[in-house]
Amino acid sequence: MISKEQYIESLRKMNFDLYVLGEKVDNAVDNPIIRPSLNSIAATYEVAEDEQYADLMTATSSLTGKKINRFTHLHQNPEDLVKKVKMLRLLGQKTGSCFQRCVGMDAANAVFSTTFETDEAYGTDYHQRFIKFWTYIQDNDFVVDGAMTDPKGDRSKSPSAQEDPDLYLRVVERREDGVVVRGCKIHQTGMVNSHEVLVMPTVAMRPADKDYAISFAVPADSEGILLIYGRQSCDTRKLEKDADIDLGNQEFGGHETIVYFNDVFVPNERIFMDGETDFAGMMVERFAGYHRQSYGGCKAGVGDVLIGATALAVEYAGAEKASHVKDKIIEMNHLNETLYSCGLACSGAGKNTKAGNCLVDLLLANVCKQNVTRFPYEITRLAEDLAGGLMVTMPSEQDYNNPKLRPIIEKYLKGVASVSTEDRMRILRLIENITLGAAAVGYRTESMHGAGSPQAQRIMISRQVNMNEKKQLAKNIAHIKN
Amino acid sequence: MISKEQYIESLRKMNFDLYVLGEKVDNAVDNPIIRPSLNSIAATYEVAEDEQYADLMTATSSLTGKKINRFTHLHQNPEDLVKKVKMLRLLGQKTGSCFQRCVGMDAANAVFSTTFETDEAYGTDYHQRFIKFWTYIQDNDFVVDGAMTDPKGDRSKSPSAQEDPDLYLRVVERREDGVVVRGCKIHQTGMVNSHEVLVMPTVAMRPADKDYAISFAVPADSEGILLIYGRQSCDTRKLEKDADIDLGNQEFGGHETIVYFNDVFVPNERIFMDGETDFAGMMVERFAGYHRQSYGGCKAGVGDVLIGATALAVEYAGAEKASHVKDKIIEMNHLNETLYSCGLACSGAGKNTKAGNCLVDLLLANVCKQNVTRFPYEITRLAEDLAGGLMVTMPSEQDYNNPKLRPIIEKYLKGVASVSTEDRMRILRLIENITLGAAAVGYRTESMHGAGSPQAQRIMISRQVNMNEKKQLAKNIAHIKN
Amino acid sequence: MISKEQYIESLRKMNFDLYVLGEKVDNAVDNPIIRPSLNSIAATYEVAEDEQYADLMTATSSLTGKKINRFTHLHQNPEDLVKKVKMLRLLGQKTGSCFQRCVGMDAANAVFSTTFETDEAYGTDYHQRFIKFWTYIQDNDFVVDGAMTDPKGDRSKSPSAQEDPDLYLRVVERREDGVVVRGCKIHQTGMVNSHEVLVMPTVAMRPADKDYAISFAVPADSEGILLIYGRQSCDTRKLEKDADIDLGNQEFGGHETIVYFNDVFVPNERIFMDGETDFAGMMVERFAGYHRQSYGGCKAGVGDVLIGATALAVEYAGAEKASHVKDKIIEMNHLNETLYSCGLACSGAGKNTKAGNCLVDLLLANVCKQNVTRFPYEITRLAEDLAGGLMVTMPSEQDYNNPKLRPIIEKYLKGVASVSTEDRMRILRLIENITLGAAAVGYRTESMHGAGSPQAQRIMISRQVNMNEKKQLAKNIAHIKN
Amino acid sequence: MISKEQYIESLRKMNFDLYVLGEKVDNAVDNPIIRPSLNSIAATYEVAEDEQYADLMTATSSLTGKKINRFTHLHQNPEDLVKKVKMLRLLGQKTGSCFQRCVGMDAANAVFSTTFETDEAYGTDYHQRFIKFWTYIQDNDFVVDGAMTDPKGDRSKSPSAQEDPDLYLRVVERREDGVVVRGCKIHQTGMVNSHEVLVMPTVAMRPADKDYAISFAVPADSEGILLIYGRQSCDTRKLEKDADIDLGNQEFGGHETIVYFNDVFVPNERIFMDGETDFAGMMVERFAGYHRQSYGGCKAGVGDVLIGATALAVEYAGAEKASHVKDKIIEMNHLNETLYSCGLACSGAGKNTKAGNCLVDLLLANVCKQNVTRFPYEITRLAEDLAGGLMVTMPSEQDYNNPKLRPIIEKYLKGVASVSTEDRMRILRLIENITLGAAAVGYRTESMHGAGSPQAQRIMISRQVNMNEKKQLAKNIAHIKN
Repeated sequence: MISKEQYIESLRKMNFDLYVLGEKVDNAVDNPIIRPSLNSIAATYEVAEDEQYADLMTATSSLTGKKINRFTHLHQNPEDLVKKVKMLRLLGQKTGSCFQRCVGMDAANAVFSTTFETDEAYGTDYHQRFIKFWTYIQDNDFVVDGAMTDPKGDRSKSPSAQEDPDLYLRVVERREDGVVVRGCKIHQTGMVNSHEVLVMPTVAMRPADKDYAISFAVPADSEGILLIYGRQSCDTRKLEKDADIDLGNQEFGGHETIVYFNDVFVPNERIFMDGETDFAGMMVERFAGYHRQSYGGCKAGVGDVLIGATALAVEYAGAEKASHVKDKIIEMNHLNETLYSCGLACSGAGKNTKAGNCLVDLLLANVCKQNVTRFPYEITRLAEDLAGGLMVTMPSEQDYNNPKLRPIIEKYLKGVASVSTEDRMRILRLIENITLGAAAVGYRTESMHGAGSPQAQRIMISRQVNMNEKKQLAKNIAHIKN
Repeated sequence: MISKEQYIESLRKMNFDLYVLGEKVDNAVDNPIIRPSLNSIAATYEVAEDEQYADLMTATSSLTGKKINRFTHLHQNPEDLVKKVKMLRLLGQKTGSCFQRCVGMDAANAVFSTTFETDEAYGTDYHQRFIKFWTYIQDNDFVVDGAMTDPKGDRSKSPSAQEDPDLYLRVVERREDGVVVRGCKIHQTGMVNSHEVLVMPTVAMRPADKDYAISFAVPADSEGILLIYGRQSCDTRKLEKDADIDLGNQEFGGHETIVYFNDVFVPNERIFMDGETDFAGMMVERFAGYHRQSYGGCKAGVGDVLIGATALAVEYAGAEKASHVKDKIIEMNHLNETLYSCGLACSGAGKNTKAGNCLVDLLLANVCKQNVTRFPYEITRLAEDLAGGLMVTMPSEQDYNNPKLRPIIEKYLKGVASVSTEDRMRILRLIENITLGAAAVGYRTESMHGAGSPQAQRIMISRQVNMNEKKQLAKNIAHIKN
Repeated sequence: MISKEQYIESLRKMNFDLYVLGEKVDNAVDNPIIRPSLNSIAATYEVAEDEQYADLMTATSSLTGKKINRFTHLHQNPEDLVKKVKMLRLLGQKTGSCFQRCVGMDAANAVFSTTFETDEAYGTDYHQRFIKFWTYIQDNDFVVDGAMTDPKGDRSKSPSAQEDPDLYLRVVERREDGVVVRGCKIHQTGMVNSHEVLVMPTVAMRPADKDYAISFAVPADSEGILLIYGRQSCDTRKLEKDADIDLGNQEFGGHETIVYFNDVFVPNERIFMDGETDFAGMMVERFAGYHRQSYGGCKAGVGDVLIGATALAVEYAGAEKASHVKDKIIEMNHLNETLYSCGLACSGAGKNTKAGNCLVDLLLANVCKQNVTRFPYEITRLAEDLAGGLMVTMPSEQDYNNPKLRPIIEKYLKGVASVSTEDRMRILRLIENITLGAAAVGYRTESMHGAGSPQAQRIMISRQVNMNEKKQLAKNIAHIKN
Repeated sequence: MISKEQYIESLRKMNFDLYVLGEKVDNAVDNPIIRPSLNSIAATYEVAEDEQYADLMTATSSLTGKKINRFTHLHQNPEDLVKKVKMLRLLGQKTGSCFQRCVGMDAANAVFSTTFETDEAYGTDYHQRFIKFWTYIQDNDFVVDGAMTDPKGDRSKSPSAQEDPDLYLRVVERREDGVVVRGCKIHQTGMVNSHEVLVMPTVAMRPADKDYAISFAVPADSEGILLIYGRQSCDTRKLEKDADIDLGNQEFGGHETIVYFNDVFVPNERIFMDGETDFAGMMVERFAGYHRQSYGGCKAGVGDVLIGATALAVEYAGAEKASHVKDKIIEMNHLNETLYSCGLACSGAGKNTKAGNCLVDLLLANVCKQNVTRFPYEITRLAEDLAGGLMVTMPSEQDYNNPKLRPIIEKYLKGVASVSTEDRMRILRLIENITLGAAAVGYRTESMHGAGSPQAQRIMISRQVNMNEKKQLAKNIAHIKN
């Protein structure tokens, strides 16, 4: 395990071909737009160094027996899955934002078990290759971007049936020592803060899609990879002079990028699927399952911050004793704990795969995610109701720093006597950050992409539920014979 | 463990002072109004005899080491709590109704741990008394009514401050060998099918309420106990000639009664609390916690039946391929599995008490129950939407049995060719049973009483959530100093 | 206009071939199962006699210039439509149930305008025939059952493509002086209390469906018409000895029947459509529009009763000052007034047809009805939450009348001192009546059939909304050229 | 009536003491941050010049008989109120944002009727003064900021009981020819684009609050008025070089400001209330009623734009035929039309005041607004669901303009063949603008302040509903005597 500082230093050595707001960025680590997202991942290292969180943040490697950061762990049992959810809630609480490191963990666990079953069917050696790769990750305590989502083009057509053959990432050349891939992964969370990228297919496939059934890992700054940084609501506030209050969350954030693979070479030992189309669906479904579970932890953690901020906002306004305020806070908590319950439930009901690591209950994981696509909107509504209009009509920090305006703002935006106007502004800006600003992406709308849209989950739910059993139960009770 | 038949025979020996629809009933076992509720409890015996369910339905007694029905088990760890929830879902699936036996199990687990802590504080011997009592229950595989809810009178006043001193059950006389109690427990689930009744206080208390801080167990047909059977929607359909189709659920049901204690004697060895007012709240909270967990299982089981019935209803109407139908079935499942997830989560997060048995996570149990007060209404709405108007405008079974009307009904209420009109009527009546009829009480409105109203749970949620921690999290992120 | 008493007497002269619970009923007027539904329609006469309601309950006939009951009125302008909604709310308030007379009014207004436009296209004289018929109805102040819903069989097939040609009502014989029809109308509201039945097709049709494109009116007790009374939740409580308290609503109710047309002769002057398949859809859509508007009045009226009953229930329990109680009452009102607003809005936006009567805004009428399929469930949930468990576990009226049990019930189910236990029981039974009992059909599940299922309305909404306009608006603002 | 151009020119003459992002701004008209909000108000002039909208956009003055912009109209009857709602929907459709001019119209109608009744009670001549002022506004076709919300300080205390006497705007000096006022109005919509400001009290008052019961009008740039511009989500995107696509809404926006009255002189003829504390509540309630009605129009109009944009986004992605997509679009329309229905209903149910202008139904107006605090959140959720992840992870316009990146973006973010990637980006940015960006304030969170918080409306609903009547209805039906 490495320290937060070592992590940051290690990133300085990366050589990304990266563009932010139209400009090439050479030093991503110190870029003010990017830095908060780096800080969030850095927190996964810093908290792991804290002894009080050792049980949640670290684990014993099933590969090497060494102590590792749980973000690189292959879950061994339902308890591990539960601890994962608790760890993500903790990090959500510490950062109030997306900390980006789950995707790699979720990808690793999906690839680990899928390669095992692929090898069983095809006599390949993907599983050993992956073990070797993942041992390297654990030993170095690296961050891995788990890359799944392709642009997909016309969704009614399979990858190989697209007019433009590049709309799903694919093998364009085969060499003795590896393959060359081309394509694009979008919505890539945390890529600029990652050491490696672990690529998976994004849909179930048919034999004709052979060249698209490709899974592999390469360094995140490999030759041929180009990154375009996604823009967020309020992103340029970080560029404002002496930006502080108006950031809402001064230290942490998240990011997502377009990752363009412009004929990137992958050596054989880093290939974990190549043409076994019948296992593409398994890899996708398992990654999605793990990732939907993740949301039951991280969103509850960010929810804790939002609930706390809202409670402070009403307290600062002197309104915390009103019965409707209390009731809305209860409702926010109720929804937040329901999300968490779903995260715990799909974890506790996990079962071990043939490869030996533990897989979440896929049905309950989908149910968890489906709630994640709804409750944060309702929590947001309640937060904005309680925060009141000031959150969206408040003057800027620059106004507050203007000596002529400051006394006016101090006087008229003052809440209860014991709290400074500045602190009141800080807490309102934090709520804005989560409900409208940069963190809103991670808290709310991110749920709409990544490991499947809300509709994708619904389809999964309908497949995973045993309707025949339910119909038979009803027939039994209604005394229907056949 | 005894068999279903032995259970039924054992009830024949009970000598209840029981009134149903204004008449004294001497043979409760064969009474057509009551029988379905007895059948539901009988199912807890019958399913326990089935080897395939042994892991869920039975356990090894922590008191005697014998194999026991899980309904009499003192949960030893979170796994036991999870199995309890799964057992309840199974029974809900088998009966499509309330099977009444949870209250005794939940009461026992609450009394077991509370007596231990009371003894620790007061040097009393309640815990040993209770162990002796409960060993007797386990050995005989008895059904116990866990009795908590008093009429409460003016809710703004404590038990001892009520104008009528009897509105909470209390000790009215103390003898050498025991006490005499007077009062009334309402909403008592399954009392007429129970061997014993285990009484607990219903609210937290203050020193002045000493005589009301009483917990004990007596045979359910003890001298002085009078029962008035609660009426249900559509209850008298069971009295109709050759009633079958119109019952919806031909075999199973539930019931609730008023239990009047008209100066009932309780021997010392059956007293588990007597005056230790500061432990009344603990007993209430723990019972409520266990019972709220229960709903995450049983309601999901009844939900399975309702979902299955609804799916059949649309299939019988030939409408199962419509996209909106599929989507509504998904939504019903989604809500149902969310309830179940909450049941699992508060179980998996359980912690052992000082007495050694395992207690659910109280916050998550409250969250579970809060959802139970909502989702069944939405599931009901979707079921009624999909079942369509026929469910509530359909002719009676007697019409169907009239030879002149039968061909008309056969012809015009026919759905798809492969299904008989009779079966279509059966499935619609089952849906009616759960959404409007006898089972609606258990499925929906029961959630409104028993272990606390929706509002009671909300208050508990607000107490159990750590708001100071959340506020501190928000301050950390917003860079607020104090 | 006739009096309530005249109405009841007029019904005694009807000679229905009617079956209730499997038995032929000769005297429907005095049948205890049916009587409450008759009383509800009788209220439409009684309230019309009350001078204070004259403006809402009566109108001046556009056909004859005479003063008529508004239930027989052809709406002349948006103000008439608004008054209709207000009248329905008033009747809902008076009866707490379905008063059944809207269907005839809604059918008449749809047939009036459709016949005009049919005549325009085909040179037929349906409009004059209908005017003659409806003048007769107005002059006699009759109740008319507007009959639309056929069994429909396989919904993927048109009427003429069904295997059994009778699953939609059709012409089976043509004579010089009229036609003979065969088929069945289901979910027929108030038929047993009606003088005439006005039949309409139930779907849009194609040329092949010619024989099914039939609209006509005949006396409700015509030779060949057979009625089977639909059963309701708790219907037989009305047969219980001295039934009073347990009825919840002692006087009023609703009903729905199967109406079987077993080769019924229709004279030419009573035929309003015969084969003009291209106008079937218009008739259906207009009837549905009027009927969906109706719900915005009647459901709000029943909602007023339920809200009032719930407010009394909490008052009787001494809980009316709790803030959560107040808030839930507000929410019930909010939802109820939203329904009413939708009823008003589609009325105020009404436009006159070519025939001269006024048609609701069809889009807003569908929006109104869509809310009716949701809000009553939420209002029900809140009512049951506030009513509490007693509503569904309370002893029967027979128990209360048993002298031994009465003192126990009096004592322990007593609420606040100033209210008798009997009154408390009455109000809880009223809530039960609307949320679980006989009136639940009208309040909640009826919305699921009749003039279109929830899904039918959604399809209508999608057709009636101008999406191209909205897309153009977005393009304008986003500066998209084409 | 003046033209759009004349309006803009007239603003150039204003001499505001205005601060934006900490800097004094002398030329507000051409300031890129402010300009979009000016354009929105300019649209109220431009659309009024368009003959096809004459019926909605113009009216005949009740004061002068001249043709006026409806935004300056005193509504004469329910039809006028309905036209107001339709006008606001139209403007919402044209601008996709808050167009700010309603507050003045709503204030004028409230002050007009309140002054009449005040004069009646006190013999004052406020009404004539107001008529003179408002004739001036109509003749000049001016924009008026209706200013109500004070900071309020400790909400449990009345204005005069605050520690700092300035937390509600008040009279600090009385002169022969007028008064001097001090205080602050927050959340002031459109102030920088207004010619005049019409001030009203913000709460009901008691005799001690005499100096706070003040209503008046002064030019918006009067000596002593200082404005601080509120910051919005994504506000500085407007400062980015060649900003176009990323703005989402290139032309229109809204704004809100803090308006500080630093001892501003008000001449007598511009005072409309001064010390008549018992009429403060009436003025507040009426303004609030009008303003809540307004939301039923403007939000529905912005909703139209959002629905259209969402429909285009799915069309551009080739997903418009999926059944879940269709259903979500229907749901968005359903909610949007329900808002509109509520706006229409409270208008159609309006009644004329003693002064002769027409007042909305206050209960239904509150119900309208209450829905406005909810449905836009649900519409937002559906819009973000359908827009998908790309909306929040998409590269910036600067990336798109970089020649190296453009081909990559063109290729991989391409949707259906017939639509350019640029247009796809435009439509996603428009959705972002309304759900997360600058317009989100107006569409969603603005509902939380201004004319009363959601809770304020609920309290109003509880006061305006006649609960005694409802209870009596329930008693009648349940046969309860008293």
